[in-house]
Amino acid sequence: MDDSTPAEPTRRVTLADVAAKAGVSVSAVSFVLNGRTDQRISERTEQRVQAAADELGYRPNLTARTLRTGRSGTIALVSDFISTTSVANAMVRGALLELDRRDTMMFAVETQGEPELENRLLHSLLARDVDGVIYAAMFTRVVEVPPILTGLPLVLLNCVPATPITAVPAVVPDEQAAGRAAARVLLEAGHRDRIQFLGTFPPGMVGAPRWHGWQPMALADRLDGLREGLRAAGASLAGCTTVTDWEVADGVRAATEALSATDRPTALVCANDRLALGALRAARDLGLRVPVDLSVVSFDGSPLAEITEPPLSSFALPQEEMGRQAADLVLATRRTRRVHRVPMPLTGHTSVAAPA
Amino acid sequence: MDDSTPAEPTRRVTLADVAAKAGVSVSAVSFVLNGRTDQRISERTEQRVQAAADELGYRPNLTARTLRTGRSGTIALVSDFISTTSVANAMVRGALLELDRRDTMMFAVETQGEPELENRLLHSLLARDVDGVIYAAMFTRVVEVPPILTGLPLVLLNCVPATPITAVPAVVPDEQAAGRAAARVLLEAGHRDRIQFLGTFPPGMVGAPRWHGWQPMALADRLDGLREGLRAAGASLAGCTTVTDWEVADGVRAATEALSATDRPTALVCANDRLALGALRAARDLGLRVPVDLSVVSFDGSPLAEITEPPLSSFALPQEEMGRQAADLVLATRRTRRVHRVPMPLTGHTSVAAPA
Repeated sequence: MDDSTPAEPTRRVTLADVAAKAGVSVSAVSFVLNGRTDQRISERTEQRVQAAADELGYRPNLTARTLRTGRSGTIALVSDFISTTSVANAMVRGALLELDRRDTMMFAVETQGEPELENRLLHSLLARDVDGVIYAAMFTRVVEVPPILTGLPLVLLNCVPATPITAVPAVVPDEQAAGRAAARVLLEAGHRDRIQFLGTFPPGMVGAPRWHGWQPMALADRLDGLREGLRAAGASLAGCTTVTDWEVADGVRAATEALSATDRPTALVCANDRLALGALRAARDLGLRVPVDLSVVSFDGSPLAEITEPPLSSFALPQEEMGRQAADLVLATRRTRRVHRVPMPLTGHTSVAAPA
Repeated sequence: MDDSTPAEPTRRVTLADVAAKAGVSVSAVSFVLNGRTDQRISERTEQRVQAAADELGYRPNLTARTLRTGRSGTIALVSDFISTTSVANAMVRGALLELDRRDTMMFAVETQGEPELENRLLHSLLARDVDGVIYAAMFTRVVEVPPILTGLPLVLLNCVPATPITAVPAVVPDEQAAGRAAARVLLEAGHRDRIQFLGTFPPGMVGAPRWHGWQPMALADRLDGLREGLRAAGASLAGCTTVTDWEVADGVRAATEALSATDRPTALVCANDRLALGALRAARDLGLRVPVDLSVVSFDGSPLAEITEPPLSSFALPQEEMGRQAADLVLATRRTRRVHRVPMPLTGHTSVAAPA
């Protein structure tokens, strides 16, 4: 079934086509279809024009309207690679849902984290008269905002600027609050002096090599919040176990180390869900039942958190809501440079219990 | 840090600005910057114009160019919800990478599977003069193509039309070939008469309720291919175990049932990775080691397949390559209505071994 036929684009139905069909002047059609009220048109003519337009399938030409009004009804979501990661991806969904409510279409652009590609793509976008840009990062981090963007409505999504920029708001997860909440969940269950954090990096190492040398915010903020939450109750962390990446195998290794110590922890707070999955495996291999013998808390609320045994008590990245807020802010008429911190809800409560 | 300032859009640098700066006429600037050759311009003037344009940061106005040429350099990826599912998502990435090579920007549109929303979004897209549309589905299925799309360059991605449409190609995973390959992998390992399929639906049930009543293609095609591959070697399936959904819990239940039978299977072919994860758990609970006591093969090649114990032998949906091919086809000058079937590579070989 390979019957080639040359492509044949549809010809757009013009105002002249509608005028000919309705038997009226082109300017009369223009007045009716553009909703102008500065000239009197009889109701009968209006109905004839509308009927002809419907019958011919006339669509307004937004390209022409963009030239007239200077607004295109489009914005761009420019990201490093958020369309390739499952969790970050919900940011796209949130933005799309909100933009649709506001009758705005969205260009999707991925820069692959390459400055040269980014520069080329941004020039191409601006030449298309986008009304604003949402500049988004796959994981929460500090970014250098491309100077070309600072002139137009701009919102940072899942990132903050290296230096505050006038009139540029940012939307990020409230990681510190989630850290404090993690402390609270464990304290309320009765844990106190044997809470261990799992997922810091060895001295001199900022993060995993595959993080492109970017400065991630999740680790520091989650840990700060956790420490603050414990301190507020007069408690403190029993210790931190380092890893060289945030993958499942790292979680197995680090948790095996932490759980083999004398005075083993009653609770592990894992920097992300993959480490936590590793921790669950290590616990099982050591004959420890979760949550009876060991409580586990983690962060991200990824799909993984639902399918572990038991499902994880994980603080979820509120990606869809973040995307929604960013879309709302980019279309707002007044701009602020506020950092909007979106709460991270706790998904599941099944990997936390009172210490044995 | 909530210092509100009114939004102030950047004024576009015009040809007149460049002309004033360079001290030449607007038409001379237009000739130089639009690359026209129908009027002679001195080299010196050309250099002056270019220098002024660079200094002012002049960008060509693609909106105006669209009106002149009828081509906008944009296409739209219209999907039901592919930006919300992690695997389908790589289709977006593949399309973006290819479109970037062809200097084309992409509108992302999600219809949420709602015909009314879809209709509204499509009208809005067409009014923006997109050069073509990639119409994509989250999971491989049969679709009714909206009539409004049939006039312009159109490619179906991860779906096929209910009735073949002239000049509309489709790109789908080669599920039947993957089914045949699954048979081959097991036959070569020495399995033959005790291979069980896991993941069909009870009589009268087309698929899981959450599938919106859509007609999925994966199950039938995977199973057909598997049966065909076995038949070619003179073997046949020992049986099929039904489920009511393709989630982990369904896999646990179905595998427990299959593995508790007398003459238990030596290999399970699971309809997707989530069922396979359930099967791994069921096997563990029954004291069976994978792959020593039981081989498991599955489909999807999702991130899940990498983190199970052992990692799954899974045939991966080639989403990125499918997205790339769809982008290539939508920009092609000759159209076909061919169905392009993209091979599904086997990820990992760790859950298959010779029967005990």
